[in-house]
Amino acid sequence: MNVKAISALREVFGERLKDSLEDRICYSFDATGKEFLPDAVAFPLSAEEVRRTVLLANEHRFPVVPRGAGSGFSGGSLPVRGGVVLSTERMDRILSIDTENLVAVVEPGVVTETLKEEVKKRGLYYPPDPASLKFCTIGGNLAECAGGMCAVKYGVTRDYVLGLEAVLGTGELVRTGVYTVKGVVGYDLTRMLVGSEGTLGILTRATLRLIPLPESVATLLAFFRASEQGARAVAGMVEERIVPCAMELMDRTAVDCVREIVGLPVPEGAGCALLIEVDGPRSSVAQEADRVEAACRRFDAMEVRRAADASGRDALWALRRSISPAIRRVNPVKINEDIVVPRSRLAEMFAFLSDLASRRNLKIVNFGHAGDGNIHVNILISGKDEEERHRAEEAVEEVFRKTVELGGTISGEHGIGIAKAPFLEMEVGPLGVSVMKRLKACFDPNGILNPGKIFLSEPAVRP
Amino acid sequence: MNVKAISALREVFGERLKDSLEDRICYSFDATGKEFLPDAVAFPLSAEEVRRTVLLANEHRFPVVPRGAGSGFSGGSLPVRGGVVLSTERMDRILSIDTENLVAVVEPGVVTETLKEEVKKRGLYYPPDPASLKFCTIGGNLAECAGGMCAVKYGVTRDYVLGLEAVLGTGELVRTGVYTVKGVVGYDLTRMLVGSEGTLGILTRATLRLIPLPESVATLLAFFRASEQGARAVAGMVEERIVPCAMELMDRTAVDCVREIVGLPVPEGAGCALLIEVDGPRSSVAQEADRVEAACRRFDAMEVRRAADASGRDALWALRRSISPAIRRVNPVKINEDIVVPRSRLAEMFAFLSDLASRRNLKIVNFGHAGDGNIHVNILISGKDEEERHRAEEAVEEVFRKTVELGGTISGEHGIGIAKAPFLEMEVGPLGVSVMKRLKACFDPNGILNPGKIFLSEPAVRP
Repeated sequence: MNVKAISALREVFGERLKDSLEDRICYSFDATGKEFLPDAVAFPLSAEEVRRTVLLANEHRFPVVPRGAGSGFSGGSLPVRGGVVLSTERMDRILSIDTENLVAVVEPGVVTETLKEEVKKRGLYYPPDPASLKFCTIGGNLAECAGGMCAVKYGVTRDYVLGLEAVLGTGELVRTGVYTVKGVVGYDLTRMLVGSEGTLGILTRATLRLIPLPESVATLLAFFRASEQGARAVAGMVEERIVPCAMELMDRTAVDCVREIVGLPVPEGAGCALLIEVDGPRSSVAQEADRVEAACRRFDAMEVRRAADASGRDALWALRRSISPAIRRVNPVKINEDIVVPRSRLAEMFAFLSDLASRRNLKIVNFGHAGDGNIHVNILISGKDEEERHRAEEAVEEVFRKTVELGGTISGEHGIGIAKAPFLEMEVGPLGVSVMKRLKACFDPNGILNPGKIFLSEPAVRP
Repeated sequence: MNVKAISALREVFGERLKDSLEDRICYSFDATGKEFLPDAVAFPLSAEEVRRTVLLANEHRFPVVPRGAGSGFSGGSLPVRGGVVLSTERMDRILSIDTENLVAVVEPGVVTETLKEEVKKRGLYYPPDPASLKFCTIGGNLAECAGGMCAVKYGVTRDYVLGLEAVLGTGELVRTGVYTVKGVVGYDLTRMLVGSEGTLGILTRATLRLIPLPESVATLLAFFRASEQGARAVAGMVEERIVPCAMELMDRTAVDCVREIVGLPVPEGAGCALLIEVDGPRSSVAQEADRVEAACRRFDAMEVRRAADASGRDALWALRRSISPAIRRVNPVKINEDIVVPRSRLAEMFAFLSDLASRRNLKIVNFGHAGDGNIHVNILISGKDEEERHRAEEAVEEVFRKTVELGGTISGEHGIGIAKAPFLEMEVGPLGVSVMKRLKACFDPNGILNPGKIFLSEPAVRP
């Protein structure tokens, strides 16, 4: 960015434009561990300021990179080509929670957990629950179409968006969608923007659908000898028409991690843990929990623990929640992938991952949202050994190929960003890439919005 | 279409291309009652034949109009600019019902009820239930994003689409989406195509999400003195966190119609009927039905009937189902609109409609899916009186203005087609129209797909 561009931005933002090295460093990284310095960081308070920024970017041809909390795993908020980072952290108002129509209107900087807590106070539920919900923002969730634990029953972020306000790459401020569940008036611009990773438009407001808070919840934790059995139990439960609100599976590597490092009690010989939660009307939850327990035992569970109350539930969840910290304690560098396979192929995928780890001589820890087939594959590396990193990268590519071969998808909830851009074509084919690039050009003709994301070969900013 | 184009099509379709006047007439109308003669009708058996048709259309510049069962209310399948109608009725195979992953793969010509029945046999549920489900097709449902009774609890067609195969206006055969609930790999082409009314691409295959069939269902029918009370009961139930799977409201005009013409027993003085259905686990459905009954009585229901079994349920549903035939018996010509307002504004909307009918001296019958705020406004006219038709058209415009003013949408489930094209801008604004037209140009640069739909001013086919 040249001086002219910076001073034009300063006219819009005043003190809320930062370009000291210190400030720029603060906004140079995300959860991928990669770093790219922006030329400046701005903190808009309104859609109008976002609009003026995008207009200036078109005039002076600099990249605009929207950023929520920077908790993404695919690099969506990294300023890989420099430019200005637009941090939405000060646009963090919940504008309304409409308990009659079950709708919330929010600014993009609202922290996901804040919204969940606020609606819960009113007996309502905003289901999406990405693991980072304590700090990630709704804007980031929308940009990446975040998922979480409960997607198996409740779907993902996309399923709770009714309408959006956004500034397109052209600088046009559009309002899309409706305030109601039904609405078919022209093209679905709302869902086109959801998951577009800030490359088509910058979200400035969202209208979200809420549902009644489930009356009751029950939590169970089952241990199996091997993840193949756990995966079969998952498939078996779904085939019996049980739809839990969470079905978290940890394979042997994850269970070992938790036992050895965190010291939580895990049965001798257990090579897989499955955490299952069911929710709904009080009268049916207990019965459903019985059916879950029976299904686990039928698929040879070694032990099934069941929580009697909230503190019991916390104790069961501790196992699942401690995996990431445990991994970090052993191995600070991990390549965290986010694949999905059809549930019926989970056992096959786990077998493949186990074989891959020994073939490639890598430590791979697998856990995830097995109810919807979403596995987080964590390859642990020292970070200092180039040859090891190379082996890990080759392993990632093998994982993606296997995923596509099994009818799955290479990103369930993290998005493409820069991390998976090299593999986009593997899944959607050259034609899919071509269609998507045309869409991009249609909404952001000068390529100023979040350049370098999703597509491998894209000019910084079109001259 | 010229002779060259027709003979090129004949090479693709052979005997499956029809151009006799008789055949063309059969495919010239839909449920709007309007008629437009196509130049020819073709019956593809494969995506490849659809692709070849679109390529020929680009070469010879003729319109291609996809058609399901022609049951649409907005004119989506009418060949308003001539060209070839592509009827998908012979692409009617259910390709798979995957009971492990709860996914069905179907061709577009599958009749909605056929799919619903087939998955039901396997204990599964495909929720979308447009009123025409006995003859409408999945392809048409996807093109218009059809809704139905159960949207208040289960959402609309869009919410059950995982992936699509489609031929874009360019002739490119694309596969979009995934086979799993999660998936964020590039732009959401799937949902961009859903509801696009055959103007961006022609669907040739769909991957649909299924859910477990609810174990049990209970049906109640409540009568109120006026629709304002019924509407308040609807809002009250939702505020109490009761989410029925159907909440059908009939106003005084609809109730009178049924009492007088069909002769069904309706309590003296009743001016509103509300049919409510709840489903879920057996253990909770009875309790929920109790709560529904209590809520109706709290909002001054005159009488609440409750079905004890399947035949009792049919008897209650008879009231709702007999409205359309009853209307047809009194007045063969009706203008059937499809608006949605936030549930909390339903009472206000009904009051407005009642006032409108007397102000404009029109017979307006209102009923619909009140749980999601979706009302079908039926203006009954003789069809022979030009002045009356003019009054009706002015009334429609008033209804749309009021709808938008109340935060609603002018089409809940019928789409825009030709019927609402003049009002598109009223809801989405000139900028919304402009963005949508750019999208159209991006996917169908020559304007050969279903021209004349959604947008008011669009050339027949771009030269």
